[in-house]
Amino acid sequence: MSRRILLRISYDGTSYGGWQAQDNAPSVQRTLERALRIVTGEDLRLTGASRTDAGVHALSQAAHFDTDSRVPAEKFALALNTRLPQDVRVTSSREAPPGLHARFSACGKVYLYSIVNAPVMSARLSRFAAHAAVPLDEEAMDRAARHLVGEHDFTAFQAAGGTAKTFTRHMLGARVARRGPRVDFAIYGTGFLYNMVRICAGTLMQIGQGKLPEDAFLRAFASGSRLDLGPTAPAKGLTLLRVLYPGQEEQGRELLLSDDPWQAEFLPDGPELLPPKPLDLTEKPLDGEGRLG
Amino acid sequence: MSRRILLRISYDGTSYGGWQAQDNAPSVQRTLERALRIVTGEDLRLTGASRTDAGVHALSQAAHFDTDSRVPAEKFALALNTRLPQDVRVTSSREAPPGLHARFSACGKVYLYSIVNAPVMSARLSRFAAHAAVPLDEEAMDRAARHLVGEHDFTAFQAAGGTAKTFTRHMLGARVARRGPRVDFAIYGTGFLYNMVRICAGTLMQIGQGKLPEDAFLRAFASGSRLDLGPTAPAKGLTLLRVLYPGQEEQGRELLLSDDPWQAEFLPDGPELLPPKPLDLTEKPLDGEGRLG
Repeated sequence: MSRRILLRISYDGTSYGGWQAQDNAPSVQRTLERALRIVTGEDLRLTGASRTDAGVHALSQAAHFDTDSRVPAEKFALALNTRLPQDVRVTSSREAPPGLHARFSACGKVYLYSIVNAPVMSARLSRFAAHAAVPLDEEAMDRAARHLVGEHDFTAFQAAGGTAKTFTRHMLGARVARRGPRVDFAIYGTGFLYNMVRICAGTLMQIGQGKLPEDAFLRAFASGSRLDLGPTAPAKGLTLLRVLYPGQEEQGRELLLSDDPWQAEFLPDGPELLPPKPLDLTEKPLDGEGRLG
Repeated sequence: MSRRILLRISYDGTSYGGWQAQDNAPSVQRTLERALRIVTGEDLRLTGASRTDAGVHALSQAAHFDTDSRVPAEKFALALNTRLPQDVRVTSSREAPPGLHARFSACGKVYLYSIVNAPVMSARLSRFAAHAAVPLDEEAMDRAARHLVGEHDFTAFQAAGGTAKTFTRHMLGARVARRGPRVDFAIYGTGFLYNMVRICAGTLMQIGQGKLPEDAFLRAFASGSRLDLGPTAPAKGLTLLRVLYPGQEEQGRELLLSDDPWQAEFLPDGPELLPPKPLDLTEKPLDGEGRLG
């Protein structure tokens, strides 16, 4: 009988054209599918929770596949890792509860945007952070980020090319903190629009330099205009910290408050996943970035 | 009149055949010299403090060059960075005190060896750490590391290919600490033999698994035999944290005790460098890894 397996995946997105299969660049999805075919002997498809862009990283992306293979669910991680490049790791594998869908069942995602705020950019972090040479006022940025929390119309926060049909999203938390020379913006929401976190990060970098007012997000909610926000920050600073499923909501809050959000890569996969609620497609339309919150 | 400029340099060594000019792989030294020629218009040579191996990283390597260019000393960092790849950064530039030589005047170096100790290796740290899947006893490793401190005959700790003629070295501090899933070994000494830190790290990993006794270093001092030590740990886990000059000794101790040794990349270059003591070549022979301590 076919089983559904849920993978947790970590990757350095620098060398990839994004999560999704591309014709002109290697994708994380295809890289994993190739390893899965070797392990299972099946020509199967992997469904990811979030279609991260080219150059964006993930510490606990999630994805599912259905298989008739007899490999024990928890053995897939090790079997896949021996067939994957070092910049993609499967951190855990488990059997999914009935009905769970990596993308449609996700009830939250936590993103981190990192900025090295120092006269000279870090060589060590050059793949994982943006750079701001002028001093950033992280307290002003943190006050501004808190305006994102709650249910808002994020029409102004969307890049051209998004496929969403509704623009209301629910943010459960947002925080800016300085960690040595790094300024980190973390945000936890039930769903995001295309490029939304990078637009928030670009706006916060301008607020931190005094080039945009602290209430820029409030103005953009009211106007619906992209012009009230800052530029889209570079992809390389963005990391999908974790995709959350029903029963894991508390992990999102903990990550947001964590002193070391990079450790999301090593969080245990638990607590136990709850069976997802049935989808009501008439009330909650789906969009390009997963299920609406 | 010619001036001597001292650079502080940070690099991700993954893509390089080491610090020193190689015929078959790009070197950090040549990459910097190419940028220096553009900035100064001179065909000059750069002298590094430490010849890090292929794949080894540095957060505050030091190097000097002599120039007739009129570029202000502190402007070289910015001018070079615009002409360097992102995995090499000049973090500071200053005029060197009379007689200072990047290699022969160095009075200490601090190295960090990082190990991800978790069932699955980190994708994010894959370029900067080794991996140990089985649990390491970091307290046993720390007790063993302390045996390295002091003046010892490190004959057993040298890889084939070393050019040293004397084998006594002086370690000023050594420490193993767990930081979340990472186990970090930091060592501060006045000089090191070829591959010495990687042999210490490989030995500590075996001690942490109970495969070598806690007094392995003491036995190797007594026997002089490479067979009493563990394997040479992979290059990618090794980072030269900082090269120290007279007047900067305290920075070495601070780094060793720091909770976040990666921040060595962002340390200010001060305190002011003291003029180096004159070298007495008859008493202190030079070797492949800089001046003897």
